Amino acid sequence: MPVPRTGSDGRHGRSENRPGDPYRTVTIAFIAERAGVSIPTVSKVINGRSGVGAETRARVEALINEHGYQRPEPTTRSDIMELVMGELESMWGLEIIRGVERTARDHHVGVVLSDFDQRPTEARGWVEDALARRPRCVVSVAQLSQTQRDQLVARNIPFVVFDLAADLPDDAPYVGATNWLGGRSAARHLIQLGHHRIAMIGGPDSVLCCRARLDGYRSAMDSAGIPVDPALVLLVDLNHEQGYGAGRELLARPRRPTAIFTATDVQALGVYKAAREAGLRIPEDLSVVGFDDLPVVSWVDPPLTTVRQPLMEMAVAATELALALGRGEQPAQRRMEFATTLTVRESTAPPPSGADG
Amino acid sequence: MPVPRTGSDGRHGRSENRPGDPYRTVTIAFIAERAGVSIPTVSKVINGRSGVGAETRARVEALINEHGYQRPEPTTRSDIMELVMGELESMWGLEIIRGVERTARDHHVGVVLSDFDQRPTEARGWVEDALARRPRCVVSVAQLSQTQRDQLVARNIPFVVFDLAADLPDDAPYVGATNWLGGRSAARHLIQLGHHRIAMIGGPDSVLCCRARLDGYRSAMDSAGIPVDPALVLLVDLNHEQGYGAGRELLARPRRPTAIFTATDVQALGVYKAAREAGLRIPEDLSVVGFDDLPVVSWVDPPLTTVRQPLMEMAVAATELALALGRGEQPAQRRMEFATTLTVRESTAPPPSGADG
Repeated sequence: MPVPRTGSDGRHGRSENRPGDPYRTVTIAFIAERAGVSIPTVSKVINGRSGVGAETRARVEALINEHGYQRPEPTTRSDIMELVMGELESMWGLEIIRGVERTARDHHVGVVLSDFDQRPTEARGWVEDALARRPRCVVSVAQLSQTQRDQLVARNIPFVVFDLAADLPDDAPYVGATNWLGGRSAARHLIQLGHHRIAMIGGPDSVLCCRARLDGYRSAMDSAGIPVDPALVLLVDLNHEQGYGAGRELLARPRRPTAIFTATDVQALGVYKAAREAGLRIPEDLSVVGFDDLPVVSWVDPPLTTVRQPLMEMAVAATELALALGRGEQPAQRRMEFATTLTVRESTAPPPSGADG
Repeated sequence: MPVPRTGSDGRHGRSENRPGDPYRTVTIAFIAERAGVSIPTVSKVINGRSGVGAETRARVEALINEHGYQRPEPTTRSDIMELVMGELESMWGLEIIRGVERTARDHHVGVVLSDFDQRPTEARGWVEDALARRPRCVVSVAQLSQTQRDQLVARNIPFVVFDLAADLPDDAPYVGATNWLGGRSAARHLIQLGHHRIAMIGGPDSVLCCRARLDGYRSAMDSAGIPVDPALVLLVDLNHEQGYGAGRELLARPRRPTAIFTATDVQALGVYKAAREAGLRIPEDLSVVGFDDLPVVSWVDPPLTTVRQPLMEMAVAATELALALGRGEQPAQRRMEFATTLTVRESTAPPPSGADG
């Protein structure tokens, strides 16, 4: 998947290269007139302040998008950027941090790391602290609220969303992985080994990348003419405990699955534990496929077959994109998904003879 | 282990509360006269610049320490601090990052994260970038060079060393764990189970916390009257591959050990792999004890007995201490080690009958 060649177009944020019609100067007064509201109201929208109704706010923002009003640059901009994580408890955060830090360091930009980690109250306080630091840009692995996004946009601080949790506006810069294809390749691998009763332990229904993995699994089953048994699809949180619990539940079924695909490696390690407790051998009695390819899954017994996300490359691309936007450039490619790859190790094998697959 | 109650003494960096004799104003001229050098030479030492011989530098610094010359505060100080890691590739970095980030956030201070990670050349560039960011303080998990430390001191940017790699001046603020006691408790546990042939896979001899773990192991063996077989002590790097390699080597010995204590959990997982390949069951044929207590070691089969470092508490304390020093406070306790605890899981058992223990 190509990385945008930021900076190669030679633009460095001079106003004539800004989006919108370069021959027209769009003022706050122009937007206010078109929207039929006062200038202070437009200013409130631009600066992300409260006191504007949702409908008015939407109308003003639509006009700003249409006419390309360019918010002024902040007077000074520091040599830092922000990385917002929501997954520090999980091991996959580390590779993202490394990729962002390395890339930013090459640009002599410091990375301020914040961990949202299910602390919505504190997360609300974060944006004020972050704005005070005047970062060049934000890479957001955790989900930012609409208000937070508005506040960043109002200050002309670009942000790039890393991995897709919730729907975003079509023009929001985004770097992710091919989750749907990854889910499909995992299920195809199991089908090709001869499995039919393939369970999926997915993530929360509200997390888009998890839905894409689930839909990829469904599509592979559908392509192979294998109906998906709804009893074999469990949606749980993306951690070890819930993977273990779901694995226990699936393996206790009278007609248990011969293979389980999980939305994360950590869930897969939970399935390992459930299989051990049920006296089932992996892969002889049960095949398991994970998602992520954390370092640790090549150390466990047996080494886990999993769908690899190129987290380092994704982190580098997200950071380059965010820094380019922070310099006022307009990279041609602002939304990209990096290819996942199936890494076959020793946790998958044909179903046990006698099983119906 | 007590955390210093930073800030409780009500000092906030006013000069009369600074170290040294408060009734005497110590000037650069005074230091220069006492040292028998020129004022520019003293200035060079204070500002961490080159061009001063080692002996002169030492003499000037000794006088500064003796007489308490107070370096001027930088004119402005930002709302950020620096966290310097050298171990991002290892999983234990994550808990430290979380502890530092949470504590700093409570103070509305952003944490700029840098990853040295065996990049000495880039690490040399780091300090210039960091100084330009004017951080309030630095928490350093990676080892800073003497030059880097001098540069920070010269700018009046306090730093706290997290975990001990190399010898430090006696007054350098430091937060660590009781590595020696941890190593001793691991070996005592194995001795109490009846083991005699207890191997140790240690870390590099140059890393002080690893030496302390090794010495703790030695002291427990000595207390029990069990001579340490030098052939059973291997010093390798703190990663999975080297743990695996050392485990293979130990288990191939004609009189193999019945127990192995490793300096890190990740090395212990390498030993798990070596044991599997040798056809040895843990703990029936081989007991294994790790060090760190990473989340993943409770998921593996069998769950690992290990020495827990309270990384979160250590990170919180290091950050509070660094921030207090950054505010100009003089916490009573500037050096502390937090207690390790032995977490007994399922990887340890009495030696197999027939073995000599």
